[in-house]
Amino acid sequence: MRRLRWRVAAVALGLALALEVLPAVLRWLRGGRRPGRREVIFFPSQVTCTEALLQAPGAGPAPAGCLCGLPHGESSLSRLLRALLAARASLELCLFAFSSPQLGRAVQLLHQRGVRVRVITDCDYMALNGSQIGLLRKAGIPVRHDQDLGYMHHKFAVVDRTTLITGSLNWTTQAIQNNRENVLILDDADCVRLFLEEFERIWEEFNPKRYTFFPPRGAAPGLQGWGHPGQTRVPANATSG
Amino acid sequence: MRRLRWRVAAVALGLALALEVLPAVLRWLRGGRRPGRREVIFFPSQVTCTEALLQAPGAGPAPAGCLCGLPHGESSLSRLLRALLAARASLELCLFAFSSPQLGRAVQLLHQRGVRVRVITDCDYMALNGSQIGLLRKAGIPVRHDQDLGYMHHKFAVVDRTTLITGSLNWTTQAIQNNRENVLILDDADCVRLFLEEFERIWEEFNPKRYTFFPPRGAAPGLQGWGHPGQTRVPANATSG
Repeated sequence: MRRLRWRVAAVALGLALALEVLPAVLRWLRGGRRPGRREVIFFPSQVTCTEALLQAPGAGPAPAGCLCGLPHGESSLSRLLRALLAARASLELCLFAFSSPQLGRAVQLLHQRGVRVRVITDCDYMALNGSQIGLLRKAGIPVRHDQDLGYMHHKFAVVDRTTLITGSLNWTTQAIQNNRENVLILDDADCVRLFLEEFERIWEEFNPKRYTFFPPRGAAPGLQGWGHPGQTRVPANATSG
Repeated sequence: MRRLRWRVAAVALGLALALEVLPAVLRWLRGGRRPGRREVIFFPSQVTCTEALLQAPGAGPAPAGCLCGLPHGESSLSRLLRALLAARASLELCLFAFSSPQLGRAVQLLHQRGVRVRVITDCDYMALNGSQIGLLRKAGIPVRHDQDLGYMHHKFAVVDRTTLITGSLNWTTQAIQNNRENVLILDDADCVRLFLEEFERIWEEFNPKRYTFFPPRGAAPGLQGWGHPGQTRVPANATSG
């Protein structure tokens, strides 16, 4: 009788353990290598009102119905904005050209919400008319750029170190509204890691401390402010962290 | 005795069946949603010799050791060439700018091997000095292009309807050797399907039959050869299938 009781207890314990472990094993088997979110957005985007998405904090709730004449449905741009505005902790931006006012407002909004934003861009395009880079710097967002002749031609963003947004799209109104473009949104740990490593590599390489346009001590005064041959000159006031 | 024999036979049969089914179940559990190949290539690429990869069919085996002065190791460009040259049945190219001689040779090589190659490109860039588009057309590869003012700014390829190659990289020597660029290689059925649908949509839209620069019958002779206002004029000899 006592032996039977032990047997029943052992079976029950085994069953309980198995039931406890089974979900984890199944999760490992099914979930461990499961691909995450993969979204593809094609452009040109329909021109829609994005005001409801871009309400600043403290500006109160969005008006029940915006009265502007634009359509208020979903568009490629609103989908991209949504992916960006999902950021809660960090946003790395590595963008050749950035002049879209809507995307600029979204990045400033995230900065105001306390998201840690860092921007890498191309020196030849950041000072063009309409560029958002100056506004981002003015808002206190750190921006770094290249000093060389090759383009910093990436167009990617990493949201909360978990989501990669990348593609052919430069963040300009011209591209968003007129060009055939693609943007991939991937929750893929390997891809995110590789793009974050590339971001940190470039971020360090473009550290203003490494800029070479200040002559070494003792150099001829006539060279003040000029780089070596073949290098683009960058004005000193354009170099913030 | 007979009952025992039946029991042993039943257990053996059950065991055999279980062993037969188990691998399939495991494959379903582990493999069914397993993400495929995901490769990321960053540029600029080291300049390396790619002759061994680009040997034409019938040219005999590649020389044991190329004597040119370039390094002969792996580079970002050679990795991209390898992904492209893996094509056995079909290659869709949707490229804003295409002037790299090595990538041009790779595409011609695939065409010679019987791979069905189709190219979509941008009308503003295809006639620039150094463009590969004319050479591809001369080789018999069908090319289609836009007629409008927005750019066909995609930079993607689909290999054998299973592998997507996409990113920021225009297929030019300038971009390959000097720019910071990325290329993603994805064996992802959903992404491939969406990009193939985009390719077919554009392929049909850029069908020369749809070009509008021929005036409708009965239009004034003075309008011969011109599109409607706001449309780029395309010379008639630039429109091959």
